[in-house]
Amino acid sequence: MLVVMRHNASKAEVGRVVGEIEDMGYEARSMPGKQRTTVGLMGNDGRVDSARIAGLPGVLEIIPVTKPYKQVSREWRSADTIVEVGNGVRFGGSEVPIIAGPCAVESEEQILGIAHQLKGMGASLLRGGAFKPRTSPYSWQGLGEEGLRLLAQAREATGLAIVTEALDPDGVDLVAEYADVIQIGARNMQNYPLLRRAGRCGKPVLLKRGMSATLNELLLAAEYLLADGNDDVILCERGVRSFDSHTRNLFDLTAVPVVQSLSHLPMIADPSHGTGIRDKVIPMARASIAAGADGLMIEVHPNPPTALSDGAQSLYPNQFSELMEQIRVIAHAIGRSVRGST
Amino acid sequence: MLVVMRHNASKAEVGRVVGEIEDMGYEARSMPGKQRTTVGLMGNDGRVDSARIAGLPGVLEIIPVTKPYKQVSREWRSADTIVEVGNGVRFGGSEVPIIAGPCAVESEEQILGIAHQLKGMGASLLRGGAFKPRTSPYSWQGLGEEGLRLLAQAREATGLAIVTEALDPDGVDLVAEYADVIQIGARNMQNYPLLRRAGRCGKPVLLKRGMSATLNELLLAAEYLLADGNDDVILCERGVRSFDSHTRNLFDLTAVPVVQSLSHLPMIADPSHGTGIRDKVIPMARASIAAGADGLMIEVHPNPPTALSDGAQSLYPNQFSELMEQIRVIAHAIGRSVRGST
Amino acid sequence: MLVVMRHNASKAEVGRVVGEIEDMGYEARSMPGKQRTTVGLMGNDGRVDSARIAGLPGVLEIIPVTKPYKQVSREWRSADTIVEVGNGVRFGGSEVPIIAGPCAVESEEQILGIAHQLKGMGASLLRGGAFKPRTSPYSWQGLGEEGLRLLAQAREATGLAIVTEALDPDGVDLVAEYADVIQIGARNMQNYPLLRRAGRCGKPVLLKRGMSATLNELLLAAEYLLADGNDDVILCERGVRSFDSHTRNLFDLTAVPVVQSLSHLPMIADPSHGTGIRDKVIPMARASIAAGADGLMIEVHPNPPTALSDGAQSLYPNQFSELMEQIRVIAHAIGRSVRGST
Amino acid sequence: MLVVMRHNASKAEVGRVVGEIEDMGYEARSMPGKQRTTVGLMGNDGRVDSARIAGLPGVLEIIPVTKPYKQVSREWRSADTIVEVGNGVRFGGSEVPIIAGPCAVESEEQILGIAHQLKGMGASLLRGGAFKPRTSPYSWQGLGEEGLRLLAQAREATGLAIVTEALDPDGVDLVAEYADVIQIGARNMQNYPLLRRAGRCGKPVLLKRGMSATLNELLLAAEYLLADGNDDVILCERGVRSFDSHTRNLFDLTAVPVVQSLSHLPMIADPSHGTGIRDKVIPMARASIAAGADGLMIEVHPNPPTALSDGAQSLYPNQFSELMEQIRVIAHAIGRSVRGST
Repeated sequence: MLVVMRHNASKAEVGRVVGEIEDMGYEARSMPGKQRTTVGLMGNDGRVDSARIAGLPGVLEIIPVTKPYKQVSREWRSADTIVEVGNGVRFGGSEVPIIAGPCAVESEEQILGIAHQLKGMGASLLRGGAFKPRTSPYSWQGLGEEGLRLLAQAREATGLAIVTEALDPDGVDLVAEYADVIQIGARNMQNYPLLRRAGRCGKPVLLKRGMSATLNELLLAAEYLLADGNDDVILCERGVRSFDSHTRNLFDLTAVPVVQSLSHLPMIADPSHGTGIRDKVIPMARASIAAGADGLMIEVHPNPPTALSDGAQSLYPNQFSELMEQIRVIAHAIGRSVRGST
Repeated sequence: MLVVMRHNASKAEVGRVVGEIEDMGYEARSMPGKQRTTVGLMGNDGRVDSARIAGLPGVLEIIPVTKPYKQVSREWRSADTIVEVGNGVRFGGSEVPIIAGPCAVESEEQILGIAHQLKGMGASLLRGGAFKPRTSPYSWQGLGEEGLRLLAQAREATGLAIVTEALDPDGVDLVAEYADVIQIGARNMQNYPLLRRAGRCGKPVLLKRGMSATLNELLLAAEYLLADGNDDVILCERGVRSFDSHTRNLFDLTAVPVVQSLSHLPMIADPSHGTGIRDKVIPMARASIAAGADGLMIEVHPNPPTALSDGAQSLYPNQFSELMEQIRVIAHAIGRSVRGST
Repeated sequence: MLVVMRHNASKAEVGRVVGEIEDMGYEARSMPGKQRTTVGLMGNDGRVDSARIAGLPGVLEIIPVTKPYKQVSREWRSADTIVEVGNGVRFGGSEVPIIAGPCAVESEEQILGIAHQLKGMGASLLRGGAFKPRTSPYSWQGLGEEGLRLLAQAREATGLAIVTEALDPDGVDLVAEYADVIQIGARNMQNYPLLRRAGRCGKPVLLKRGMSATLNELLLAAEYLLADGNDDVILCERGVRSFDSHTRNLFDLTAVPVVQSLSHLPMIADPSHGTGIRDKVIPMARASIAAGADGLMIEVHPNPPTALSDGAQSLYPNQFSELMEQIRVIAHAIGRSVRGST
Repeated sequence: MLVVMRHNASKAEVGRVVGEIEDMGYEARSMPGKQRTTVGLMGNDGRVDSARIAGLPGVLEIIPVTKPYKQVSREWRSADTIVEVGNGVRFGGSEVPIIAGPCAVESEEQILGIAHQLKGMGASLLRGGAFKPRTSPYSWQGLGEEGLRLLAQAREATGLAIVTEALDPDGVDLVAEYADVIQIGARNMQNYPLLRRAGRCGKPVLLKRGMSATLNELLLAAEYLLADGNDDVILCERGVRSFDSHTRNLFDLTAVPVVQSLSHLPMIADPSHGTGIRDKVIPMARASIAAGADGLMIEVHPNPPTALSDGAQSLYPNQFSELMEQIRVIAHAIGRSVRGST
């Protein structure tokens, strides 16, 4: 941590900063510069609360040097983490697993039908919401536990691993009984009681980036999971809030290689939420593979215009099939692979 | 709802949109224009899922006309809602209550000492976190229930009403035992299980705007509370995420008069989080009163440099005292009032 | 254009809106709804100034239906525009031209050396700034006309077409004497006197998206060029301002397929400015091709650490060479092509 | 400037950074930390190009400590700059001048009529665009030089000083013949040839913050003016781009006190563009005064619904008159003053 003093800070003010740092049990190193003095805090173990210094007289600003996260960082662990989710599917290796399925589980017919189709086209995991976080209280909120049972039935029938979202701490335990991967959605990225429970649930967690989360905040949210003992964390870019209304979100695909540099955890991409528009999902799914994403999450519905949610961004099954062909070639071009049709 | 068709949409495509709207039980009205046809959906009761139409062939875009929220809107109820929080304090009337206190409850001495000071300076409510949502798992997370007990003790001693945050559904019930107002923080604005429980908790709720929430999303989050039976909702602007690093957030003060136009609920401002910088809190608190905020939430700490959290944005007690003098004059200039010192 | 009236708008207020629309020479159609009345303006030729209506009593909001741009739209011209820039290089067809070169022209040795290397690796155009828009007045501002002469010399020597930026109207004429394509930079996207001059300069224009320009604003800026007679316009995504500091800009790659849907003009991508980090340029350049960009603009410097500007985002020549190999395969996977090494 | 090295940077990599800094003529100071080494560059005169270092192997990031601007900073000049604009009107002192007038000069009758009204209500300067930067090429672009003549005529008649915008370098000279203050609009904040000409024009300049400009960028744009010899610069907050569509821009009022801390230049506020909605201009104008703005710029039109531009955000004259009454009281509450009606 570096404490930048004001131009006209007095010696006494610099001295107080040095004293405060030493009181906190760290070493201070003062560096007088041409325009201002800076004071370095040495030995920061990531637990320094900078606000204590920021409020002292004569302090212009605090510049963090130590990263605020630890266990998720490449500096803590340099090798890529491989997250196994069952049925031999692994995130973080050279194969790129594809998660596909409808926004929500709507009926047995819907979810079993699409699961068989997706399996045949090469998907490795089935997605489908049983508990849906909806912006309006008047929107349909999902089938609940019945949806979880239908997902488990689809796994039985197809061998696809299951990813589905939990909305509150008690829900984590319930979802963990049925699913292979617990999803924490964008709205809940900083729901700490939820993260803590997911950190102890014994299942891999798919953590989606919040609507306007910085990458440091995403990594700190993941740190909650690792700090509670869960190393099997998959991160996911799904678009951030921005000012242009042509797309539902601004898909920040560069976050994929940036997070891969900062962290050893696998980072996947969700171009369905990232764009919100069916015919833009396809080019951006291709782009995600080309950018090196460790997986994709794609909404596919047997009949999008009748979908109970997210119909506008769901692919038709035949579009998904064509997409799978294209991304196999692109994955190959960068030395990775996508599972073929069965 | 208005369905805008593509320039070259066929008659059959327009017809399908009309049919789909009628299938959903609404009336459709087609309007052929010079450049394109639009189809109006009449009789929308706020429950139409536009995605069902958005995915049809020939559709360019969907334009919502009906507001997605109902009970929170001025159209549902034109008169200002007055939220009474105990001890005669009312939000939404001509008097502007001031909430003040430290970011977190740290000790009996700290919270009782500051409560007496704030009471003497004219504050009406005491804030202080017992459960702290912290970006890092390694940061101090608050005193928990012990903090709630100390807040209740401070109320006993001073008569100040208490506002403090709940982080999860079970926490709502616990906080409701001690506090006068339950705070839902910015990170949890779209935590729906939490909102649902708060909607049934029997205490007023202070709902803070999410980090990048649109005003429609803020109002829809409040709609969850009203839909579950809680009409005593106070909204709060506390800054949104933006691109300039000089301030912690971008304080969107215009949201105050905009929300007051859209909704009958009281809307207050939190310039402490809105700016994140002690000496900017003061001008922006004045500005909030001048803009017509229905209340203020201000962080004040007996000794900010030693605060366990948010020290950099907490006022010294004497700064708060001076601020109270200034805002009394400004409130008076626009026909409102702020309680005087005792 | 659709005029949405307030819930409680009077008949007289609706009547005044209808009258005002008819005064402006258009047809008005009133649509009473369950919650509110809307009034459609029919026959909008894109010249209606909505503010005249927006200020009338009883009006809640104005919703534009007609797109504000004309000649740039797919509805004006459905076939892709092909922009020929000399030497057989065409933007907008199945071949994807690659623009490469240093941020700035620094010396004869630098620009000729890199031009020969890039030509050999398959680049089709050479970029290099002679007039540099710099955030600080104390930064180096480029070689000026001498830089233009060196670029022309590099074209003589290699056959590469030249792209370089003009900063003011007089500069357009000067740059047009030397360059094959005139670049309008992000800071000048809404510099209308500059756009007007570029619209009459007789050379193709590469128009970069502004720092926080909506896609409508980008298309309207291009409309200035077409309105003044220049149909040879290439659009370019180069990242927008956002809140995360890990990258220089937020590279909005989805803008590529979105603009390609809205407009017939070719749309290329600049991942160098889009990311600002050398080792992120490579995955995002691949992603750009996979997303369907009609060209790439890549900063390459013979020795990035000594570059006078943008060194941190410039590729080493050997990195560019490897990138070209990867993007050839990806282009092929989506039915396009990138020129091979010579 | 501080160079942060990667965790695993080698001694040779640190040595190369030190060598490069010394080659550039500065002193380097290496600080080995617990997690990583940082290297300080001492003696930075604001001209260091950090990119040269950022690209070296082993470098994680560059942290600027020296501010990039000089002459505009409080550290260069601690006393407030007072900008005199003629007729005894001064920005930056205890009196707060009010600029008012229509978006555009439309006719002699319009501009003279409103000028007399505004003068009577206490405005000190008249605004009105003669050259209008319009997003669409098909929108009305202003009266041009005829508009300048009408503004000068209004000054003759009322004694109000004149503020109007210049769009290109040649326009600066023309506008300077007629106006008292040259406005540089938000779209042109980084139009460097325009800034350079305005730096030499001999008249005060009103520089508006760009649509998504950071405060550092605003100050660097002002630095261009001072670097070319013009010390009479007034800065202006006018809203930034954001994600909520209820307002035209997000009015970043906190920028006023932040810039006043960083710079000695006067900083005013434009709530008309900041909000874009007539009935939100009034509370936000009051808020601007309460926040300490050194002036206001308010759009007022004799008959807003007929305005040729910006009608929706223009006040009616009687609204402006009431606003003036309110802001006089607020200014007084914070020890400043607004001129009374005549």
